Amino acid sequence: MCLIVVGTMAFDDIETPFGKSDKIIGGSATYVAYAASNFIQPVQQVSIVGNDFPLEEIENLKKRGVQVEAVEVVTDKKSFFWSGKYHLDMNTRDTLVTDMNVLEDFNPVIPESYQGADFLMLGNLMPQIQKNVIEQLRTRPKLIVLDTMNFWMDTASDDLKEVIAMVDVLLVNDSEARQLTNEYSIVKAARKILQTGPKYLIVKKGEHGALLFNENSVFFAPALPLEEVFDPTGAGDSFAGGFIGYLAKTKDISFANMKTAIIVGSAMASFCVEKFGTQRLKEITKADIDVRLNEFVQLVNFDIDLV
Amino acid sequence: MCLIVVGTMAFDDIETPFGKSDKIIGGSATYVAYAASNFIQPVQQVSIVGNDFPLEEIENLKKRGVQVEAVEVVTDKKSFFWSGKYHLDMNTRDTLVTDMNVLEDFNPVIPESYQGADFLMLGNLMPQIQKNVIEQLRTRPKLIVLDTMNFWMDTASDDLKEVIAMVDVLLVNDSEARQLTNEYSIVKAARKILQTGPKYLIVKKGEHGALLFNENSVFFAPALPLEEVFDPTGAGDSFAGGFIGYLAKTKDISFANMKTAIIVGSAMASFCVEKFGTQRLKEITKADIDVRLNEFVQLVNFDIDLV
Repeated sequence: MCLIVVGTMAFDDIETPFGKSDKIIGGSATYVAYAASNFIQPVQQVSIVGNDFPLEEIENLKKRGVQVEAVEVVTDKKSFFWSGKYHLDMNTRDTLVTDMNVLEDFNPVIPESYQGADFLMLGNLMPQIQKNVIEQLRTRPKLIVLDTMNFWMDTASDDLKEVIAMVDVLLVNDSEARQLTNEYSIVKAARKILQTGPKYLIVKKGEHGALLFNENSVFFAPALPLEEVFDPTGAGDSFAGGFIGYLAKTKDISFANMKTAIIVGSAMASFCVEKFGTQRLKEITKADIDVRLNEFVQLVNFDIDLV
Repeated sequence: MCLIVVGTMAFDDIETPFGKSDKIIGGSATYVAYAASNFIQPVQQVSIVGNDFPLEEIENLKKRGVQVEAVEVVTDKKSFFWSGKYHLDMNTRDTLVTDMNVLEDFNPVIPESYQGADFLMLGNLMPQIQKNVIEQLRTRPKLIVLDTMNFWMDTASDDLKEVIAMVDVLLVNDSEARQLTNEYSIVKAARKILQTGPKYLIVKKGEHGALLFNENSVFFAPALPLEEVFDPTGAGDSFAGGFIGYLAKTKDISFANMKTAIIVGSAMASFCVEKFGTQRLKEITKADIDVRLNEFVQLVNFDIDLV
């Protein structure tokens, strides 16, 4: 029951109201792999890094059951680099620097050893590359999950629509769902998006939780109310990793199990934001995850006898 | 097991992106009474109206078990009037007109027949009047719930602090919780507020649901994802009415039962916003409420075996 993860492995330099990270490890596929590997191994990583990416980080991922055969190392270029500064609300941020570097050449080749994977997580990346990966898989995975962002809606709308039509689950945030559909109501936006291909839509609302839609049902998962959101970078990727990792572990892609998977994703996101970058995700144990999941149960659990 | 409800009974003129209401019945105590009377009767209303308030509306409330002995009728003045216009997000609004009218003279006298009530709902109103009502009750109710708003934080901060210290449950929205405490984090704001008197705090977040805090625990209730929020006026009051009505009906003020009561409040708010003013609250039956509560169960219910 393998999981392929496609996305960036990169450096970030993050400033929040709480401090500055300096240059640290980031990237969508990095966060997904750290989150998902708590639930499923191997994770078959597809990414690209430059000559500055630390070997130690690769070794760290390998120890967690992450296969790196399809992580291309470009020896004469640097890794993708992003620098940003969060506002006080931690929901909005300014991008200060984006150095594409190796990402300009990214044209992943899926190795033979990855063929036959049941789960595919397409982390935030150029839609053309996401589509290209799907097309390389000789057997369609049981579940394809696609993460994307407003940048691709602005710059690669046609490619994005094509790849959205090919996947099972689309992950966007609330403003992206609105942008995709020109609908202000999230319920209306969801209905429109579900007519364009995906059977499931997850709308992430940051500190306000996440909604899961299919044609007939809706489920709401809260975010854990935290004293401090220290660094939101990677929260969406950690959510995605927890979500697909739990589905791969349980081998059950029913709506009922997706509800639980979203709670698991929310738990991984809640860890991610507690420290800069991937630091907290590297520290946590299975026991920590169980405690956190129990907090989510307590957070939403109620008894009712209808009136 | 009586419930006293204190607040305005008034006229509103509402404009939303969906239309204009013209002059319709509103007021915090009106909404609370319509919501609470589904669960508990009698509701002992404390309010003030002018010569323009329709007798039909009073009769309508009486039929629902609302006692109006302490609804003062001022024959030479008009009822309180508010006019507002909602923005597209339905979370923000501009006040166009506020005519205090009878509210300038409001100095409620609690009648003998109301003494001994177990539940007191202090709807949004001048803090001085809220305090005055508490002081008139010879036996302290088992549960006092206070609703307020930023306007009183700006204009009557000392009075507000005094009355907050006297109640069991404080109801505010997220920006008001921040304003009360100068804390951006809702979790930190909650901790500070709980040190000023109330044992419970409810933070309303509109379409993003509501949080219930006590010293040790937190509970999250979602808002029902609706295709259209037609008119948000009165949603907070309907929430309060459902909350305290359910508590009064079940005679159980434990944290566990408050969780359920918040879901009931959220259900009443979800009805309220479906039509202008109190219209939808007047239409719904117990069967409608049961169906809606079941939708809330489905919305948040998940199964998990810890990993």
